[in-house]
Amino acid sequence: MPERRRADARRNYARILAVAEDEVAAHGADASLEQIARTAGVGSATVRRHFPTRRALLEAVSRERIEALCARARELTGRDDSRNALLEWLGDVVAYCVSARGLAAAIAYDGPVHENGCSAALEEAAEPLLRSAALAADITCADLITLIVGITLATEHYPDPAAQADRLFRLAVAGLSPRS
Amino acid sequence: MPERRRADARRNYARILAVAEDEVAAHGADASLEQIARTAGVGSATVRRHFPTRRALLEAVSRERIEALCARARELTGRDDSRNALLEWLGDVVAYCVSARGLAAAIAYDGPVHENGCSAALEEAAEPLLRSAALAADITCADLITLIVGITLATEHYPDPAAQADRLFRLAVAGLSPRS
Repeated sequence: MPERRRADARRNYARILAVAEDEVAAHGADASLEQIARTAGVGSATVRRHFPTRRALLEAVSRERIEALCARARELTGRDDSRNALLEWLGDVVAYCVSARGLAAAIAYDGPVHENGCSAALEEAAEPLLRSAALAADITCADLITLIVGITLATEHYPDPAAQADRLFRLAVAGLSPRS
Repeated sequence: MPERRRADARRNYARILAVAEDEVAAHGADASLEQIARTAGVGSATVRRHFPTRRALLEAVSRERIEALCARARELTGRDDSRNALLEWLGDVVAYCVSARGLAAAIAYDGPVHENGCSAALEEAAEPLLRSAALAADITCADLITLIVGITLATEHYPDPAAQADRLFRLAVAGLSPRS
């Protein structure tokens, strides 16, 4: 591909991605691919070439936030108070998922299947944090992230999703122990 | 409305509901209203008259299961081991939500807003169970049900959703305590 066509393609992609970010911010994981194409002034086929699946679209839109969360996990790793460091990171994941529509769905799409998805990146970054926090036996990063994704999805319709998500996260951290 | 037209309308509704149940079982909360109309052999407007919103459709499809869970809560209330009775009921909610596609979404749609929805019915039925289980201070039935709905939604894409949902439910019951 000649240099100029490559530059055009890059600009095209950047414009579609910017529009996609706005649409996902406004409508969450159900953002319309057709609307993205219309607003970006390209055909649906062009959008589909860049984002063959809804999962690919949500992943592209969420990439920066996923990277920021991975960086934060690395930053917290090695702190003395390792359980609190893990809880702080998980709290950040809650806050990011609540504030960025589409992010929880992007992670949930992955399930445990896609080795290169958002979920895998987060799990890899959080693994050392979890190991040093020494939680009960067999809890995995995937468990914790899936739980947070679920909390975010289920609180989306609350009047104050951030407050309810935080509340449920604390509940899960404390467990359902008898009143003491 | 003359008797015969009323009988027709009832049959019509029963047929549409049966088709809707199949469609929701096959496609979850995203079941197509147009497809339901086509399969039931009625117009889209007729489907919309019976189910003006997606929430109304999911609620109608989930009604029997919600009622069964409410009956189960009443049955378990008053047992000596009240914490285990509550946990058993919550485990039933997990199992129902995993096995009946659309049920978790029907409950999640409600959020804390609709006073007559699925969520309100479950909360009312579980209230005495929760009270006698005497969990830590301010946990509400809405918290517990929302948490379970989230767990179900987030594990939908796992190869074995029932196993992963059960795993995360146990994790939330135990809490993130340090390894002992």
